[in-house]
Amino acid sequence: MSSSLGTLYKVTTFGESHCKGVGAVVDGCPPGLELTEADIQPQLSRRRPGQSDLSTPRQEADQVTIYSGTEFGRTLGTPIMLLVHNRDQRPQDYGEMSNIPRPSHADFTYQMKYGIRASSGGGRSSARETIGRVAAGAIAEKWLRETYATEIVAWVSAVGDIEAPPADIEQISRTEVDSQTIRCPDPATAARMTARIREVLDAKDSTGGVVTCVCRNVPVGLGEPVFDKLEARLAQAMLSLPATKGFDIGSGFAGTRLSGSQHNDPFIQKGTTLGTRTNYSGGVQGGISNGEPIIFRVAFKPVATIGIAQETVDFDGKTVTLAAKGRHDPCVVPRAVPIVESMAALVLIDMALHQRSRRPGTLDLRG
Amino acid sequence: MSSSLGTLYKVTTFGESHCKGVGAVVDGCPPGLELTEADIQPQLSRRRPGQSDLSTPRQEADQVTIYSGTEFGRTLGTPIMLLVHNRDQRPQDYGEMSNIPRPSHADFTYQMKYGIRASSGGGRSSARETIGRVAAGAIAEKWLRETYATEIVAWVSAVGDIEAPPADIEQISRTEVDSQTIRCPDPATAARMTARIREVLDAKDSTGGVVTCVCRNVPVGLGEPVFDKLEARLAQAMLSLPATKGFDIGSGFAGTRLSGSQHNDPFIQKGTTLGTRTNYSGGVQGGISNGEPIIFRVAFKPVATIGIAQETVDFDGKTVTLAAKGRHDPCVVPRAVPIVESMAALVLIDMALHQRSRRPGTLDLRG
Amino acid sequence: MSSSLGTLYKVTTFGESHCKGVGAVVDGCPPGLELTEADIQPQLSRRRPGQSDLSTPRQEADQVTIYSGTEFGRTLGTPIMLLVHNRDQRPQDYGEMSNIPRPSHADFTYQMKYGIRASSGGGRSSARETIGRVAAGAIAEKWLRETYATEIVAWVSAVGDIEAPPADIEQISRTEVDSQTIRCPDPATAARMTARIREVLDAKDSTGGVVTCVCRNVPVGLGEPVFDKLEARLAQAMLSLPATKGFDIGSGFAGTRLSGSQHNDPFIQKGTTLGTRTNYSGGVQGGISNGEPIIFRVAFKPVATIGIAQETVDFDGKTVTLAAKGRHDPCVVPRAVPIVESMAALVLIDMALHQRSRRPGTLDLRG
Amino acid sequence: MSSSLGTLYKVTTFGESHCKGVGAVVDGCPPGLELTEADIQPQLSRRRPGQSDLSTPRQEADQVTIYSGTEFGRTLGTPIMLLVHNRDQRPQDYGEMSNIPRPSHADFTYQMKYGIRASSGGGRSSARETIGRVAAGAIAEKWLRETYATEIVAWVSAVGDIEAPPADIEQISRTEVDSQTIRCPDPATAARMTARIREVLDAKDSTGGVVTCVCRNVPVGLGEPVFDKLEARLAQAMLSLPATKGFDIGSGFAGTRLSGSQHNDPFIQKGTTLGTRTNYSGGVQGGISNGEPIIFRVAFKPVATIGIAQETVDFDGKTVTLAAKGRHDPCVVPRAVPIVESMAALVLIDMALHQRSRRPGTLDLRG
Repeated sequence: MSSSLGTLYKVTTFGESHCKGVGAVVDGCPPGLELTEADIQPQLSRRRPGQSDLSTPRQEADQVTIYSGTEFGRTLGTPIMLLVHNRDQRPQDYGEMSNIPRPSHADFTYQMKYGIRASSGGGRSSARETIGRVAAGAIAEKWLRETYATEIVAWVSAVGDIEAPPADIEQISRTEVDSQTIRCPDPATAARMTARIREVLDAKDSTGGVVTCVCRNVPVGLGEPVFDKLEARLAQAMLSLPATKGFDIGSGFAGTRLSGSQHNDPFIQKGTTLGTRTNYSGGVQGGISNGEPIIFRVAFKPVATIGIAQETVDFDGKTVTLAAKGRHDPCVVPRAVPIVESMAALVLIDMALHQRSRRPGTLDLRG
Repeated sequence: MSSSLGTLYKVTTFGESHCKGVGAVVDGCPPGLELTEADIQPQLSRRRPGQSDLSTPRQEADQVTIYSGTEFGRTLGTPIMLLVHNRDQRPQDYGEMSNIPRPSHADFTYQMKYGIRASSGGGRSSARETIGRVAAGAIAEKWLRETYATEIVAWVSAVGDIEAPPADIEQISRTEVDSQTIRCPDPATAARMTARIREVLDAKDSTGGVVTCVCRNVPVGLGEPVFDKLEARLAQAMLSLPATKGFDIGSGFAGTRLSGSQHNDPFIQKGTTLGTRTNYSGGVQGGISNGEPIIFRVAFKPVATIGIAQETVDFDGKTVTLAAKGRHDPCVVPRAVPIVESMAALVLIDMALHQRSRRPGTLDLRG
Repeated sequence: MSSSLGTLYKVTTFGESHCKGVGAVVDGCPPGLELTEADIQPQLSRRRPGQSDLSTPRQEADQVTIYSGTEFGRTLGTPIMLLVHNRDQRPQDYGEMSNIPRPSHADFTYQMKYGIRASSGGGRSSARETIGRVAAGAIAEKWLRETYATEIVAWVSAVGDIEAPPADIEQISRTEVDSQTIRCPDPATAARMTARIREVLDAKDSTGGVVTCVCRNVPVGLGEPVFDKLEARLAQAMLSLPATKGFDIGSGFAGTRLSGSQHNDPFIQKGTTLGTRTNYSGGVQGGISNGEPIIFRVAFKPVATIGIAQETVDFDGKTVTLAAKGRHDPCVVPRAVPIVESMAALVLIDMALHQRSRRPGTLDLRG
Repeated sequence: MSSSLGTLYKVTTFGESHCKGVGAVVDGCPPGLELTEADIQPQLSRRRPGQSDLSTPRQEADQVTIYSGTEFGRTLGTPIMLLVHNRDQRPQDYGEMSNIPRPSHADFTYQMKYGIRASSGGGRSSARETIGRVAAGAIAEKWLRETYATEIVAWVSAVGDIEAPPADIEQISRTEVDSQTIRCPDPATAARMTARIREVLDAKDSTGGVVTCVCRNVPVGLGEPVFDKLEARLAQAMLSLPATKGFDIGSGFAGTRLSGSQHNDPFIQKGTTLGTRTNYSGGVQGGISNGEPIIFRVAFKPVATIGIAQETVDFDGKTVTLAAKGRHDPCVVPRAVPIVESMAALVLIDMALHQRSRRPGTLDLRG
C-alpha cells in the first residue's frame, strides 16, 4: 500500500540501507523498448554519494542489474526487476544509541508506527531507498524521450538563502547543470553555494536548498482530473522524497501575490496548435498539461544529521546529548537533482499511458 | 482512475457545473457512526458562494441528501451516496464563445484531452466539483473527531501580498476564523485583506492568496512510506484542488534557508510519550505523523475569470478580445478554507484506517 | 475498497434495498460516446423482477437517470452518475425477526463484520445492488459494440438438473434468448425448465441453475497477466454476484477429464490472422484473449428465501422456526442473464482500455 | 496493473523462465513477524518439479533469499524482496521454432498483445512465475497461523476422470496429503491416479485434474462486498494460476441441482457463537466468511506440452507438425497443491488486514 507508485507504469521499491540490496520492480513498462543496464546506470551514478568532497565520502558502487523483463536488450512488457546490492549488509545494533531517536529523523515515528525499526542506517527512510526510484525513472525517461522527445532537466536553484538567477527553461541542459559540481548552472552562484556548503561542513552543520525542474516536450493532455491532476501527482511524487518540505508549480507561492490580469496566460498560435504567451501556469491548466514547459520547485530541508551536539531525550524520556560522528552530506540538493528528474519521469509516463488508453493515435506532440 | 481518492476511505466525486447534480460516493466509512445530513451541511454552507458581498452573488442552496449507506441515523459500513442537485441544470451552447478557450482556464486542456468539453460553467474544473469533497470530508472529520479528538482548522493567511501574523496553532478555532468574513482570524489583517479584495473587485481584477491549515490531535503513526508518506498524500490532495499552485509543510520553503542545528526538532518528554520542543517538521517525520500539530500551507493563484479585457486567440488561432461578464469571485481563499479542511480530513482518515489494520488497538494518541 | 470494480473503467455501486436509491458512478468512460438513458434502460428492464409469473411479482420501475458526465447526449469522459430511486424507501425494524439470521443469507455475516446491518431487505446483499452494475455495464457494452462489434449473449443453460443442449455460440442472439421467458433458447428445454420452476414454486421451495455466456468479436490481446488474466477478472466479476458458487471457462471442469491431445486447440489460418480449430480454451490462452469466442458458465445456488419452514437459531442461540412469507423468486437465473452480460462487459472494457494504453493504433480486431 | 495482487498485503511477482531470477516483493507484511528463509523454503520445495518420477526431471534448486524487509529475523513492516536465481539464464532463440505458436500455450497471445515475447520457456506464462506467489504465500500463511490458527490444506481430488472420495475437511492435514506422492490422501485412489499418470506419460500425452482446498479457522468477517467478496477474490486468485479453467466454492456447480430447502445451512449454536449445521455455503455467506471451513475446488486443464505430434500452423499460416521433445510433466495437479494453498493465503491475509482496519480488536475466531 505504500511502496508502489503509479497505475499503468507501476514502480515498487524495496530495500533498507543495511539489508542485502535495494531496487525496484517496474510493472507496465511498454514492450519493445531497447533497454540494458547502460541506460540506467548514468542517473544512478549522478545520484551516488561521494561524487565530490562536498558530499559524503562513502563510495557506493551502486551497480544495477536487470533481473527480469528484458530479453536480447528489449523490454518484454513484463515486470522489470532492478537490483543494486548493498555493500554494507550488516545491520548493526547500536547499543544505547538505538534507544535514542535522532531529532528530525524517522527513528521515533518508525518505532511508533511499526513497533520495530531498522537498527541502523535509517532503514526505508535512508536515501538509499531512492536508488530504486532513480533506476525505474531512467527507464521511464528513455521511453518518454523516444516517444515524445520529452526532456527533463533539474538543477539546484537555491542553497540556504543563496538563490540562483532564473534559468533559461527552454534551453537548460543536463550538461550545463553538471558542468558545476554543485549542479547550479550559473557559475557565479555555484561558487557562492559551494563556499556556503564548505562553511556549513566546517561548522559540522547542514543547510537546505531548492531544486527546480523543467519538463519540455510533454504532450498536451496528461493528467487525470480531479484527484490525479498532473500537479497533484507531481506534488505527491516530490513530497514522497526524503527531506522534502514543499512543492510549487509555475508561479507557485509567488504567484499568489499577483493579480489575475498579470497572471493569466493568453493563448497564441504556436505552429499548428495553441500555446501561451506567458507560462505562469507552469505547463498545467485544469490539472492537464497544455504543451508548455512544466516547471516546478521542490524544497529540501537542512540535513538532519549534524556533528553539532544536540540536547534531546531518549525513548525513556531521559535527557541525552547527541552528535553525529564521521562525515555526512551537509546538503542534499546536488544529489537530489537526478532523483527529482526521475520522479517527474515516473509521473509523466504513467499519465501518458493513461491518456493513450483514452484517445489512441491522437496523442501527438503539439507544434 | 481519476475521480477517486483514498484506498480504505475511498471518495469518488461526480458532477459538472450544469448537469443534474454533483456529489460523491464514500466507500469504506466505518460502520456505526451516527450520521445525518445535519453533520454535513455546515461545511457545505461554509463552502457556498454568496456568503458575503466579497464573493460571487450566486445563491446556491447546496442542500445535501444522503441516498444510501445509513439507516436510522447510523452508517452501515456500505457506500454513502451524497447528492446535491444543481439549480442551473441547462448546459448552454455559448455559440462563438465556445470556440474561445479562456486564458488560464481548463477549456483548452479539456478539449485537447477529451476531444469534447462541457459547453459552459467549466464542467469538472468548476468549483462546484468540490461539493462532493466537502461532503465526504465532513463525514471523515466527524469520525476523526469522535475517535481521536482530531481538530482541523484552516484560515486565510495571505491575500495578495498581505500576510497575516503567525496564528496560535495550538488554539486557533473555526469560531475564531469565522468571526471574520474573510476568514483571517487577525482582525487588523482581515480589514486590510477585505479592503484589498474590494479594490480588486472594483478593478474587475482578481487576486491570489494562501490558506494555512493545522491538524491537532492526529495520532502518531499515520502515513505510509514511501510513496504514501503523509505529506505526499496531503500534497496530492491539496494540489488536486482547483487554482492551487503550491503546498508546503512545517518550515516549508522558508525552512530551506535554515541550518540543520536551527531546524532540528529536539525530543522532549510530553505526558507519557515524546514530543518535540520545536515543530519545524510540521508534525511529520519520515513521512509519518509524530503527534505534533500538522501544519501546512496551500497557495491559490489569482482567479482566472476577470472583467478586464484580455487579448487571446480562439481555437482557430484568430485573435480575439475576451472580458468576463457579470460578477465573479475575485479571490477564492475565504471559500477555500472548508475545502482545505475537508481534503485534510480525507487524507487523515484513510491513513488512520491503514494504520489500524497494522497495529490494531495500539493507535493511541500521545500525551 | 469494495464497491469499486475496474481500473480504467471504474464502476462504484451504491445503495441498499430500502434506502433512497441505488446506482453507480462510472469513472473513465471514453469521451464522445453517444449516450442517453435509452441506451441503459433495456438491460435494466430485462433485469427487473416481475417480468413473468415465474418471478417475484414486485413491480419495480427501475427508471434510471443520468445525473452527470454527459452533455447534449454525449459522454464527456467525466464520471457518469446513474441513479434509480427506490420505491420502498422505508427501512423496517422487523422486531424479533431482526434477531434471527436467515439461513444462507448474509444477515449473520454482515452483522458480525460491520457490527450493524440493514434492518430489512438484505441491504447491500440484495439483488437490487446489481442495478448499478447493469446500468454501468450497458454503457460498457455500447462502447464495445461500437468500437469492436463485440457481442455479449448469456442464457440459461441449466435449471436444477435440467440441462440445455449446447447452443450455437457463433449465432446465439438475445432475441433468441428472450424468445423464451425462461431465457433458455431451446424451446423444449425451456418448457421443461418452466414446469420445474412451477413445481418448485408450488412447493414453496427454490432451485439453482447455470448461466452460460459467450462474448464474440473480442479483440486479441485483452487480459493483463499475471494477476489480471482475463479469466481471473471474469471469475472475480461473476463470483461477486449474489448467489454465485462457481465459474468455469472453455472446457472448464469437464475439460479436466480430457487428455492434452484432445484438449489442445490447433491453430489454423482465419482470414488474415490465426484462429484455432477447436475452442477448448474458451477464447483465452495464457490469460489473454485469442480472438475466439469467450465462453464461460456461472453457477447460481438455489434461492435462500423459501416458504418451507426451517429450524434454525437466533443470534442468542435459541431455536426458532422460520418460513418466508409472501411470494419470492424461486430461481434467479432468468433474471441473472443480463447481469452476467453486464459484468462481462465491465471486465472487457477495462481490459480493452488497458491494452489500448500499451499499443495504440494496433488494437485491431482479427479476421 | 497486472503483476500485483492485494491491497494491504500486496504481492508483486517478477521473472521469466530464462531471465536471471524470479521472485516477488511483498509490501504490507505486518511488522514484528519472525521470518527467515526457513519459513518459506518448505512450500517452495513442495512446489518444485522433479520430486518424483511422475513429474519433469528438471532439478531446480529454487533456493529463496530474503533481500530486504527483515532484520535479525523479524519483519520490519517494509517491503520484503524474495529472490530465486534461475539456473538456466540463457534465453534461447529457437530458430524456426520461434515462428510456431504452440497450441494452447501463450505464445500466440503474448506475441499479439505485446508485439514481442520471451523466446523460450514460456516467459511469464511459465510455471516458474508461481515461485514468487508461493514464497509470498508462505509468509502470509505463517502470519495467519500465528494470528488466527488458520490452517490451509489442499489436495488432489481428481486426475482425469478418477475422483477421490470426499475428504474429512475438519481433519485433513498436509502430512496426510504428502503421504502420497500424487498428493491425493486416499491411498487407493492415489494408486489409481498414479497408474493413470504413468499411462499418460507412456502415451506422450497429458491429463487434467482438480485440486480441492480447505481453509480452517478463518475468522468471521473476511471479504469486502460487493466486488471483493471473499469468493470473488479467491476465484480471481485461482484463475490467475497457469492452466486453470474453473473454480467453485461450497456446493459449487453440483449445488445448482439442489433445492433451497436442501441447500440452506441452518444456524446452530457452536461454542459461544453461531455456526451452521451443514456447509453448502462453503464458509462464505454474502461474500463474507462465516467461520465455517472454506472449501473450494480448482480445475486444471491437461498440460498443453505433449510429445504426440500435432498439426497446427506457424505465424505465417503455414501448416507444420509439432511434437514436444524431452520429458514433460504430464499432470500439474500434484505440484499445484502448494500453489493453491499459497494463493488462498494471499487472499485471506489481505482480507484479514482490511477487516482489522474496520473493527480493530473484534476480529475474533468463532467458537
